[in-house]
Amino acid sequence: MRDVATRTVSIFGATGSVGTSTLDLIRLDRDKYHVVALTAHSNAAALADLAMEFDADIAVISDPEQYDVLKALLAGSNIQAAAGPDQLVAAAALDVDWTMAAIVGCAGLPPTLAALKGGKTVALANKEALVSAGALMMAQAKEAGATLLPVDSEHNAIFQCLQGGRIDQVRKITLTASGGPFRSWSKEQMASVTPEQAVAHPNWDMGAKISVDSATMMNKGLELIEAHHLFPVGLDKIDILVHPQSVIHSMVEYHDCSTLAQLGSPDMRIPIASALAWPERMDTDCTPLDLAKIGRLDFEAPDVDRFPAIKLAREAIEAGGAVPAILNAANEIAVAAFLKGSVQFLEITEIVSRIVDSYSPGEPNDLADIFAIDKETRDRAVAMIEDVKV
Amino acid sequence: MRDVATRTVSIFGATGSVGTSTLDLIRLDRDKYHVVALTAHSNAAALADLAMEFDADIAVISDPEQYDVLKALLAGSNIQAAAGPDQLVAAAALDVDWTMAAIVGCAGLPPTLAALKGGKTVALANKEALVSAGALMMAQAKEAGATLLPVDSEHNAIFQCLQGGRIDQVRKITLTASGGPFRSWSKEQMASVTPEQAVAHPNWDMGAKISVDSATMMNKGLELIEAHHLFPVGLDKIDILVHPQSVIHSMVEYHDCSTLAQLGSPDMRIPIASALAWPERMDTDCTPLDLAKIGRLDFEAPDVDRFPAIKLAREAIEAGGAVPAILNAANEIAVAAFLKGSVQFLEITEIVSRIVDSYSPGEPNDLADIFAIDKETRDRAVAMIEDVKV
Repeated sequence: MRDVATRTVSIFGATGSVGTSTLDLIRLDRDKYHVVALTAHSNAAALADLAMEFDADIAVISDPEQYDVLKALLAGSNIQAAAGPDQLVAAAALDVDWTMAAIVGCAGLPPTLAALKGGKTVALANKEALVSAGALMMAQAKEAGATLLPVDSEHNAIFQCLQGGRIDQVRKITLTASGGPFRSWSKEQMASVTPEQAVAHPNWDMGAKISVDSATMMNKGLELIEAHHLFPVGLDKIDILVHPQSVIHSMVEYHDCSTLAQLGSPDMRIPIASALAWPERMDTDCTPLDLAKIGRLDFEAPDVDRFPAIKLAREAIEAGGAVPAILNAANEIAVAAFLKGSVQFLEITEIVSRIVDSYSPGEPNDLADIFAIDKETRDRAVAMIEDVKV
Repeated sequence: MRDVATRTVSIFGATGSVGTSTLDLIRLDRDKYHVVALTAHSNAAALADLAMEFDADIAVISDPEQYDVLKALLAGSNIQAAAGPDQLVAAAALDVDWTMAAIVGCAGLPPTLAALKGGKTVALANKEALVSAGALMMAQAKEAGATLLPVDSEHNAIFQCLQGGRIDQVRKITLTASGGPFRSWSKEQMASVTPEQAVAHPNWDMGAKISVDSATMMNKGLELIEAHHLFPVGLDKIDILVHPQSVIHSMVEYHDCSTLAQLGSPDMRIPIASALAWPERMDTDCTPLDLAKIGRLDFEAPDVDRFPAIKLAREAIEAGGAVPAILNAANEIAVAAFLKGSVQFLEITEIVSRIVDSYSPGEPNDLADIFAIDKETRDRAVAMIEDVKV
C-alpha cells in the first residue's frame, strides 16, 4: 500500500545527465517517491533497467523502432511499454505531483507543453521550452495554473532567492557567468581558437555544444532569454555578471538594496534537489561549499564587444516572436560547424547574427510554427555555412 | 483620520545611530507610519525635535533630570513627555505594530523585555538583550508569541536567508567577519597595537568600542552568542568565516547543499529597512551593490590562536548561565582600559578569560540578576586591571 505522503513523479529524459541525477536523488529516499513514467530517446536497455529498478508504471521510448526491444525487456513486469512522440505527450498528461522535463532539444517541447497544460508542477531542464517557445510555454503555464521550477543552476538560484521577496520588489536580477575559457582573451586571440580549446570548460564537466556556448557566452544569452520568461521583471532589470569561479549561481537585489544570492558546489544535483523537494528541502550527499578553501571570488562586467552573443540575445528578447527560436537554431548549426572545423570561432556569432537579420517569419502561434521556424533556420544556416566555405 | 494601512511604530534609542537611521527610512514614506513612542537617553533637545517632526504620541527621556527640559520643549504640542526607566518600560508596553529596540547597553534590557512580554514585533539592535540576557529574552518571546527581527547586518542576513527554508533544514549557518585591521598580523605584531590602530576599522564607520571589538574579533564572538539564541540550530552548526570585504553579510547552507547569502553595501539602513518593512520590502535610496566594481571577495578561516575571543565566546555559549553576560561586561571594561592605555591589546581577551574563569555566579533568573552579575563583573575587571597596573 502506498504511503499517502508518497510523491508521484515522472521523468522525461530519464537516461540523460539530468534524468540520471534526478533518479540518484530519488534513490536517497526511495520510499518517498512513486515513479509513474520514465522516458528515453533510444536507449531501450537503459530505460528498461531504470523502469524495473524504480518500478515505474510506464516506460516510453521516443524512437518507435525501439518499441519491440523495450517491450521484450519489460515482459513479465507490470510496467507498460510505449513508444513514439504521441505516447510521450500522453505520458506527460498522466496524473503526477511532479514532472521532470529533461528531454534535450525540440523533442522535449510537446511533452513539456502537455505537462504544463495539465497544470502540473514541472521541473524544467529543457532549454528550448523557454528559449524557442517561451511565450507559448509561459502562457500555457499561466492559463493552466502550472508551476515551473527551473533546474538550470542560474535560474534555480534566482528562484530560490525570490523566496525572500516578491517579483515586484526586485530591483535587479544578476545572472552570473563563468566567462568561459576565453574570458581574458583578446578578439585577435579568439580568432584562432580551436574546438579543443573551446570545449575545455573551467568549472563544469559538460558536453561539447554547451562548452562552446560557454566559450562564446551564448549560453548566458540563452539563459537571459529563459530568465526573461521565468522572472518577468523586465529585460532592463536582468544583468549578466562574469564570475569565473561560478560559486555564486545568481542573485536577486530587492528595492531595499538587500541582495540574496544562492551559492553551491558545481554539482547539478543541487538545483535538481531543490526542485525535487520544493517547497521542502531534502537531505542529500552533495558536497558542501567550502569558501575558506576556495578563498576568492572574482567579478567583472561582461565585454559585449568580445562576446557579442550577449547583445544578440538581448536584441532577440526585444524583438520577440520567432527571433529567440531563430537565434537558438542558428547557433546550434554554427556551433556544430565550428566543432567540425567548417567555421572559425568568431564566425559562430556572426552566422547567428546574419541569420537573425535575414529571416523574419511571423509570430509562432503553436509548436508546429516553432518546429517549422527551427527547421527553416537550420536549413538557412547550413546553406550559409556552405556558401562561406565555397 | 489615520489610514488603516498605517503602521504604528515606537523607537527606543531614537537619537542614536540605529534610531536616526530608522527615522530616515520612515521619512522616505512618512504617511505609512504613525510614531507612537520615541525615547532617548539624555538629549532632550534632539528627542523633542524628533517627536515634533514625527508627531509622536509620547517622548520618553531616560535621564529623569532632563524631564523638565523635555516637558518645556514639548509645551503646546499634543506630545506627552515622560522620563525615567519605569516610563521607558511603560512606553514599551504601549500598543504598536513594530518596536525598534536600539537603546545601547543594559539600559535597553527592561523596555526590550517589556516589548517582548507584550507579544510585539521587535526589531532588535540592542546587543545586551541576547548576549547578556539571551535565555530570558528568548523564553519571554516564545511565551508571549513575540517576533524578533534582528537588525545587526549579520543576523539580519541570516534571517533573510532563512526565508528560503526552515531552521530544521539548515546544515550550517556562516557568520562572516571582516577580520578587523589585524587580520593578517602576527601575535607579536598585535602585542604592540595602539588604540589609534585598533579604531581604524576597514569597512564600517563605527565607534571606538565596537572598532576594538572588531580588532579582537570579540564582536564576532558576541554575534555568535546572539546567533545561537536567534537561530537554534546548535552551536556546532554555526561557523565564522573571515571575509575582509564584508559584502556577504552572512549565509545559510541547507541540507540539500544550497547556500543562501545576503549581500549588500556597508549601510546599516539596509538591514533596518528589511526589519522595518518585514514581511514586505520597502523602496529605499540605499546604494545598490556593484560587484563588478568591487571585483573580488576573499575568504579565510578565522585563526582562533591569534583571535582567542572567538574561542571564549564558544565556551561561554557552552557554559551558558551567567557566562555570556560576564564575558560581555568584562570585555567592556577591558576595552575601555585598552582605549585609556591601561592595558595592552592582547591583554583584553586575557582579562576577559581570567574574569570568566574566576567568577561563577548562579544562573540568572531575571533582569535583576543580570544587572547584579554585570555590575559585579565590572567591579572585578576594574580591580583586576588595577592589580595589573600596580
